[in-house]
Amino acid sequence: MDQAKINKRIRIPELQKKIMSAAQAADFIKDGMVVGMSGFTRAGDPKEIPFEFAKLAEGGKRKIYLMTGASLGADVDGAMARAGAISKRTPFMSDRDMRTAINNGSIPYFDLNLGDLAFQIRNKQLPDPDIAVVEALSITEDGYLVPTTSVGSTDVFLEKAKQILIEINMAMPDNFEGVHDIYVPRRREMPEAGIIPILDVNNRAGTIGCKIDPSKIVGIVLVNKMDSASENVLADPAQDAMATNLRNFFLGEIKAGRMTPALFPLQAGVGSVANAGLWGLLEGPFQGLTMWSEVLQDSTWDLLDSGRMTFATGTAITVSPKKTEEVYGNWERYKNKVCLRPIYITNSAEIIKRINLIAVNTAMDVDIYGNVNSTNIAGSNMQNGIGGSGDFAVNAHTTIFLTRSSSPDGRLSRILPMVPHVDHNEHNVDIIITDKGIADLRGKSPRERAVEIIKISDPDYKPMLQDYFSKACERGGHTPHILERAFEFFDNQRKSATKSMKG
Amino acid sequence: MDQAKINKRIRIPELQKKIMSAAQAADFIKDGMVVGMSGFTRAGDPKEIPFEFAKLAEGGKRKIYLMTGASLGADVDGAMARAGAISKRTPFMSDRDMRTAINNGSIPYFDLNLGDLAFQIRNKQLPDPDIAVVEALSITEDGYLVPTTSVGSTDVFLEKAKQILIEINMAMPDNFEGVHDIYVPRRREMPEAGIIPILDVNNRAGTIGCKIDPSKIVGIVLVNKMDSASENVLADPAQDAMATNLRNFFLGEIKAGRMTPALFPLQAGVGSVANAGLWGLLEGPFQGLTMWSEVLQDSTWDLLDSGRMTFATGTAITVSPKKTEEVYGNWERYKNKVCLRPIYITNSAEIIKRINLIAVNTAMDVDIYGNVNSTNIAGSNMQNGIGGSGDFAVNAHTTIFLTRSSSPDGRLSRILPMVPHVDHNEHNVDIIITDKGIADLRGKSPRERAVEIIKISDPDYKPMLQDYFSKACERGGHTPHILERAFEFFDNQRKSATKSMKG
Repeated sequence: MDQAKINKRIRIPELQKKIMSAAQAADFIKDGMVVGMSGFTRAGDPKEIPFEFAKLAEGGKRKIYLMTGASLGADVDGAMARAGAISKRTPFMSDRDMRTAINNGSIPYFDLNLGDLAFQIRNKQLPDPDIAVVEALSITEDGYLVPTTSVGSTDVFLEKAKQILIEINMAMPDNFEGVHDIYVPRRREMPEAGIIPILDVNNRAGTIGCKIDPSKIVGIVLVNKMDSASENVLADPAQDAMATNLRNFFLGEIKAGRMTPALFPLQAGVGSVANAGLWGLLEGPFQGLTMWSEVLQDSTWDLLDSGRMTFATGTAITVSPKKTEEVYGNWERYKNKVCLRPIYITNSAEIIKRINLIAVNTAMDVDIYGNVNSTNIAGSNMQNGIGGSGDFAVNAHTTIFLTRSSSPDGRLSRILPMVPHVDHNEHNVDIIITDKGIADLRGKSPRERAVEIIKISDPDYKPMLQDYFSKACERGGHTPHILERAFEFFDNQRKSATKSMKG
Repeated sequence: MDQAKINKRIRIPELQKKIMSAAQAADFIKDGMVVGMSGFTRAGDPKEIPFEFAKLAEGGKRKIYLMTGASLGADVDGAMARAGAISKRTPFMSDRDMRTAINNGSIPYFDLNLGDLAFQIRNKQLPDPDIAVVEALSITEDGYLVPTTSVGSTDVFLEKAKQILIEINMAMPDNFEGVHDIYVPRRREMPEAGIIPILDVNNRAGTIGCKIDPSKIVGIVLVNKMDSASENVLADPAQDAMATNLRNFFLGEIKAGRMTPALFPLQAGVGSVANAGLWGLLEGPFQGLTMWSEVLQDSTWDLLDSGRMTFATGTAITVSPKKTEEVYGNWERYKNKVCLRPIYITNSAEIIKRINLIAVNTAMDVDIYGNVNSTNIAGSNMQNGIGGSGDFAVNAHTTIFLTRSSSPDGRLSRILPMVPHVDHNEHNVDIIITDKGIADLRGKSPRERAVEIIKISDPDYKPMLQDYFSKACERGGHTPHILERAFEFFDNQRKSATKSMKG
């Protein structure tokens, strides 16, 4: 490794003595430890130490309580799950093998609103990490750790952990330094403590890195590997229809005088559906758009390139392989239009409310009264976690959920009489959009909402939904239900699955 | 009426020409109007105009879309419901006859987080009121309307309505003026617009009344009637046990170093259970307590009298007949320890988060995974509404729900396999307290939570809950459920009810 480059990245010379192999570093992670690891939707996670740790832990020889920003990159969670190395996991994951272990009960997982993690650690409601394992771009001369492509809860892990392991990512461009704004809550005795002094998406209130105590650093590993790219998702007519409906919704808001062509700052959930929704804004009158979100996906950069979006801020950058090259290869073009912040800032109730955020998230399924399931398949099996959707949905100016009217194979309606798990309740859902249309729930009673939501269901399931709703209304109630029939869609599905297994 | 007293209460002399009878005033409320009416948990509602309007509307001759702060006093909602005078109702009610009309579908009602009403009107997501009908203590020489015992959303109704009807309540003591702090959001062009400059419970940022345009006033009625008192509730061993458990929870938090004997500002839901919970703090080491809540009930004044509480702020005062005399008869004793604010301030996400609020609310029922139903009996029949509990639960430092382990007659478990309606989901519920104990859900997976919650269930129902949970775990999943059995408690109850009707 080029010493000049190392000097640029580790600017406190004595810290360079802590450089070691990933295997040596991993050995600092002991059985029973609480570990705070960087990483958010595959961005900015440590690339080598976790795999070395999984080797040491193999067969459950070491077990850790693992906290992260959100999901880790390709197979990091999987390797640790397969090694039996996890005694507890929070707040989000998206790995297949870890998901299996969570759903069979062998890994206790608690699914947390992502914005709550830092808050709960700072308030001693969750334990402090014993060790922080974080990826960094650099360590400055005055003791700031500059993160890479995500912040998440890294700032809190570094603040609270007794020991720190760092992977310096040499593959990231040097000029990425400066994109972060790490704001630490003001101390009680300071004037206006308690106010977060961020008034708009492009405001800065903090520093370019996380202030650390260098004496806590026990190991530094030099790594040369970019983030796992986001999975490519093929275009899909249902997604296109949802994107068109989302655009039409915004056009209606502009016409009604509730929004201007700049809209309000946009938040978009992670994944292809919300991403496609934002691409939809490349057409139409939209100008002066801004983004206040968790993750900056491919569509963000296209909107910035188009000139329609002026500024985007989030806690992570997760892009496709093609965009990885375009974005980091042309960083000078973007560096003044982007800012990465801790998640307790991006998901802050105070700021979300202040800036009139528009929250656009994806639902797993919705019910005829406007409740949304984002997490548990058929009420029981965890998919990934709620992520930040709860933080945004409850405090947003306008809360929108996108969902297909039915599963891609058409075998399941995404609109149900009753969702089997509620992550976002009727009180916090303003708009539901499917490939079949827009249901505007604002100011409507549950019976009025049911009429609107059934309208945008898959025609194959509309008669069943209508039948349930009519019979429920005969029984009566403000939110008419027939409890013994509420989950019949699942029951039918379970029976036909059993039948086809037997058949 | 004594002219000197009138001069003191209506300090713009030409407005005195608008004094008229309640019947004359009611005639300004026309068919099809959106009406914004003061009133919050029986406090500060107009006492005469609504009844006169109900007479005019009798038989559905006039129908209005009625918005209020929250519930109105004795029979106000009932009289209008029986007259067929309501075409739509929001955001909260607690009247028997209106409840019947809502549940049989004849009055469309939408149940809103109370803090959202002002926001949604100001953002044109809900219509402006055509007319505001509000109770006031006085109108000052410089055009401020001073409310009485509640603010709720009165400030927004006055700001947006085209016409204003006022009931001046002569029965309230003159020296009640000064207790309110009406803060209007700063305009965009002002420095630090968007920041609510309230840092602690006793801060003031606004004016003693709502600035109004006197030319919008179409009628003033002089009234001499105190608020309907809160209903008396008898002491009850289960309530006492919950209060003791709540106190023990706080003692544990102090011991763990998460709180001091001053705790954090307390919010308490309306009703006898939360009120009894606060009374529990009259014992123990608690000192320097403060309150940031919606409603100041009997227990608040006892805590102030005891010297353990230093300041209490809310949007309404609702007290028993005995306390009515004590509080308003000795107002000088309290006036510097109390402040009434608009509900969009008391329920503000920004402030709730900033002050580390402790939210104590009552659940209708809870499930073994920590979801809470606050509104819909058996999933369908509206009781009162969610009130502000959603605003507090999602942003509080610690979110506590109190519920009996079973109904007073023991015929229903309040802990269920699955709640039939979710108002507060697993992500936002930290602590559940019953008469049987405390379930601390923080940092626990769903299966771990179920163990804790089943522990505090009624012993008569524990075997059934345990059986459901064990069988669900056999089927598997992160949140194990047997959907076709999830509502069997209700089904059993429905069948036995049918049986007993036949028998």
